[in-house]
Amino acid sequence: MSLDVAEFETVPAAWTRRHLLDLEGLSAEELTCLLDTAAQFKHATDNCKRRLPVLAGRTVANLFFENSTRTRNSFSLAAKRLGADTIEFTSSGSSVSKGETFIDTAKNIEAMNVDALVVRHSAPGTPHLLSNNVACSVVNAGDGPHEHPTQGLLDILTIREHRGTLAGLTVALVGDIAHSRTARSNIWGLKTLGAHVIVCGPATLVSRRWEEFGVEVAYKLDDILPRCDVLNLLRIQFERQYTRPFPSVREYALLYAMDRQRLRRAKDNVLIMAPGPINRGVEITPEVADGPHSVILDQVTNGLAVRMAVLWLVMNV
Amino acid sequence: MSLDVAEFETVPAAWTRRHLLDLEGLSAEELTCLLDTAAQFKHATDNCKRRLPVLAGRTVANLFFENSTRTRNSFSLAAKRLGADTIEFTSSGSSVSKGETFIDTAKNIEAMNVDALVVRHSAPGTPHLLSNNVACSVVNAGDGPHEHPTQGLLDILTIREHRGTLAGLTVALVGDIAHSRTARSNIWGLKTLGAHVIVCGPATLVSRRWEEFGVEVAYKLDDILPRCDVLNLLRIQFERQYTRPFPSVREYALLYAMDRQRLRRAKDNVLIMAPGPINRGVEITPEVADGPHSVILDQVTNGLAVRMAVLWLVMNV
Amino acid sequence: MSLDVAEFETVPAAWTRRHLLDLEGLSAEELTCLLDTAAQFKHATDNCKRRLPVLAGRTVANLFFENSTRTRNSFSLAAKRLGADTIEFTSSGSSVSKGETFIDTAKNIEAMNVDALVVRHSAPGTPHLLSNNVACSVVNAGDGPHEHPTQGLLDILTIREHRGTLAGLTVALVGDIAHSRTARSNIWGLKTLGAHVIVCGPATLVSRRWEEFGVEVAYKLDDILPRCDVLNLLRIQFERQYTRPFPSVREYALLYAMDRQRLRRAKDNVLIMAPGPINRGVEITPEVADGPHSVILDQVTNGLAVRMAVLWLVMNV
Repeated sequence: MSLDVAEFETVPAAWTRRHLLDLEGLSAEELTCLLDTAAQFKHATDNCKRRLPVLAGRTVANLFFENSTRTRNSFSLAAKRLGADTIEFTSSGSSVSKGETFIDTAKNIEAMNVDALVVRHSAPGTPHLLSNNVACSVVNAGDGPHEHPTQGLLDILTIREHRGTLAGLTVALVGDIAHSRTARSNIWGLKTLGAHVIVCGPATLVSRRWEEFGVEVAYKLDDILPRCDVLNLLRIQFERQYTRPFPSVREYALLYAMDRQRLRRAKDNVLIMAPGPINRGVEITPEVADGPHSVILDQVTNGLAVRMAVLWLVMNV
Repeated sequence: MSLDVAEFETVPAAWTRRHLLDLEGLSAEELTCLLDTAAQFKHATDNCKRRLPVLAGRTVANLFFENSTRTRNSFSLAAKRLGADTIEFTSSGSSVSKGETFIDTAKNIEAMNVDALVVRHSAPGTPHLLSNNVACSVVNAGDGPHEHPTQGLLDILTIREHRGTLAGLTVALVGDIAHSRTARSNIWGLKTLGAHVIVCGPATLVSRRWEEFGVEVAYKLDDILPRCDVLNLLRIQFERQYTRPFPSVREYALLYAMDRQRLRRAKDNVLIMAPGPINRGVEITPEVADGPHSVILDQVTNGLAVRMAVLWLVMNV
Repeated sequence: MSLDVAEFETVPAAWTRRHLLDLEGLSAEELTCLLDTAAQFKHATDNCKRRLPVLAGRTVANLFFENSTRTRNSFSLAAKRLGADTIEFTSSGSSVSKGETFIDTAKNIEAMNVDALVVRHSAPGTPHLLSNNVACSVVNAGDGPHEHPTQGLLDILTIREHRGTLAGLTVALVGDIAHSRTARSNIWGLKTLGAHVIVCGPATLVSRRWEEFGVEVAYKLDDILPRCDVLNLLRIQFERQYTRPFPSVREYALLYAMDRQRLRRAKDNVLIMAPGPINRGVEITPEVADGPHSVILDQVTNGLAVRMAVLWLVMNV
């Protein structure tokens, strides 16, 4: 164990940031450093199972202004596996309901000598605003429809694990691109690392303007299916108040659900991914979700590895 | 401390299960192994006060789909006293409300490399279903009206501590047998260990069919009172939507409340138990709850010991 | 680190209490002992940043019957920085809603071998009642409008840090004195340590009867402003159902808000404090809250130090 800790004494030279706010601004070197570090942590902790107390005595605060158990627990567990203490702030029952400003809430938490704030908020740019107002590290855990950088990283790490590299791969993001921070983080990260990215979904949810950023836009999954190395099936977020972007769930499933028939037309080694929670029978059928091409649960495990890497890097520059 | 840890290196040969789903299926040897291990943990941790890090680096997830602070905290504290990390999932605000299936939620938690899932759910059989779908250990923390095995074990451990053995004792479970998972776990555990079990309560809440399983059925507490070594007073669950099983609380208390008068007619060394939270003045009067026969708070402490034992056993077979 | 722990082996002779219920009953020696210990912990933990495991293996339970994230997290983090395990009980979803009495809930938590109960409740005197019914330590984290002793202590510690002593200082508490437990704890602690205390606010919120206790009563901030060494600006609690104690927020701000103009008439080295969460533009303007006289965030850090000191002292007499 002590040997492993020694391995993690100095942050690689490629990493110089105190915050992780988005993937849009990161260079290929920085992204690779993040992925390499995550892979190292995964190895050193025996597939994310054991503790590696490289953050012992440090404190990480989760500051979640949107409901989440999955991401919040993943960050919390990543922090604990690195030996850090964690504290949890959620919007309900907190000082926010007493009229305190968001920045004051964050500064008060920081004043408890917290070393990193992991923040989720419905307003795009919240983590960026925060990073200009606190001295500690800030990690974006999802800011409205803008970005969700650790989700992007865990998706990319999962692809790299299975294919060795991102360069030259064709990756399709399928579904609600318009409202998806996961899509945006994937797009920037994948592009920077040399993948060809396709966004695919109903015209109401996929803007033609992505072409300006070198992203291919498609409206029929069947048209692009045979060319894809990876299909990342974004979830249709029924809990949102949509203005009816498609006629019915059945219609959506007919056109975009990954099922047995479509799988037969895909590449033999296609990877099926989904950020979850999945709607079985909507964007993916059970036999595909649980089949040999699916790496959905690998993504969850890699989420831990990525969050360990991010916390360690930003807290040790 | 290190000596104590060494004591807990290998699980006894009598224990071979990766899950604890119910007490109905356990043999006398298995039950005794559980009780002996709990007693050992209680001793080694100085009456459940100190840490004994035999699960250091392991992770236990609480997955509670029904409200609970008492049982959830007891499991959580038991895990912490053994050095494990814990994560908490409750139904409100989780992915369940986003349409994810129960099994997908559990598998996603497991994919964070969780070693044991402690599950409470209103549907009987949920832990059993889960155990067929995950690779990690599953512990039933209450599945609807079916079973609550750690509650049964802590009740039985408390009796054994005070009487040395279960064999030959007469134990009455009083109150709402129909809806009580605590009753069911007690019945199976007590019977297997050789106790005589009486279920006693209003006819609307106590089925005559228990006689088929070798359980005595009684409708008047006063009839059986002088014969009982132990009275386990189940709580009337006012928060449930009953279809009026008895005319009034006053009527119930008149017939079944353990009070000073009834205590006088009981055996000199009768043990008064209650799984709590108790309704003072309904199933038990204050002077009995706080009197010398009451072992209600011993039950809580033994709950910690039992949960330590269960977690350690199922995670180390 | 080991040297530091050794420093905290024995509680100072001046401290003999198992509970911290209020500041009203404490002697100057006891208050000084608390402040000195807090200062020592602050130093030994490098400004409350590092762990100092003097409570390793002990357990602290937060028992909060009123919403709080700030104070609850501060106690929780203080306990963790001393190496203790923590468990959290809040009123929602707990056994209280199942009809259990407050004392039974507390005794059940204590029976899990908890060493200290940190309690917040809307009813004045709750911690005192509790301390008569449990064997473990009780710390008052706010009991209705009565007292909030750790808030009083952290305010006083912050003043002492900046001025060296309390004796001879003039400290004004401004705002809603009638409903403020923070005011009450400050008054008793400050008086005992030799400060001159002024309570200042609308006549509907400041009773003339404070004069009987040697406290100066003022209704106009501008009258007392030039004499004050410290201004502690209590928050107007909009979430309370006031019976309109002042005509409007604008009116309140005109008379009592600490702004640039008023700051110019204050002493050069005046300390501006606020227990938070602050209402910017009501009791304090942004340029004062964020200005050089403000020690608001020092108060938060000192909250950790004070809570470490309190937990360690009451759990080790």
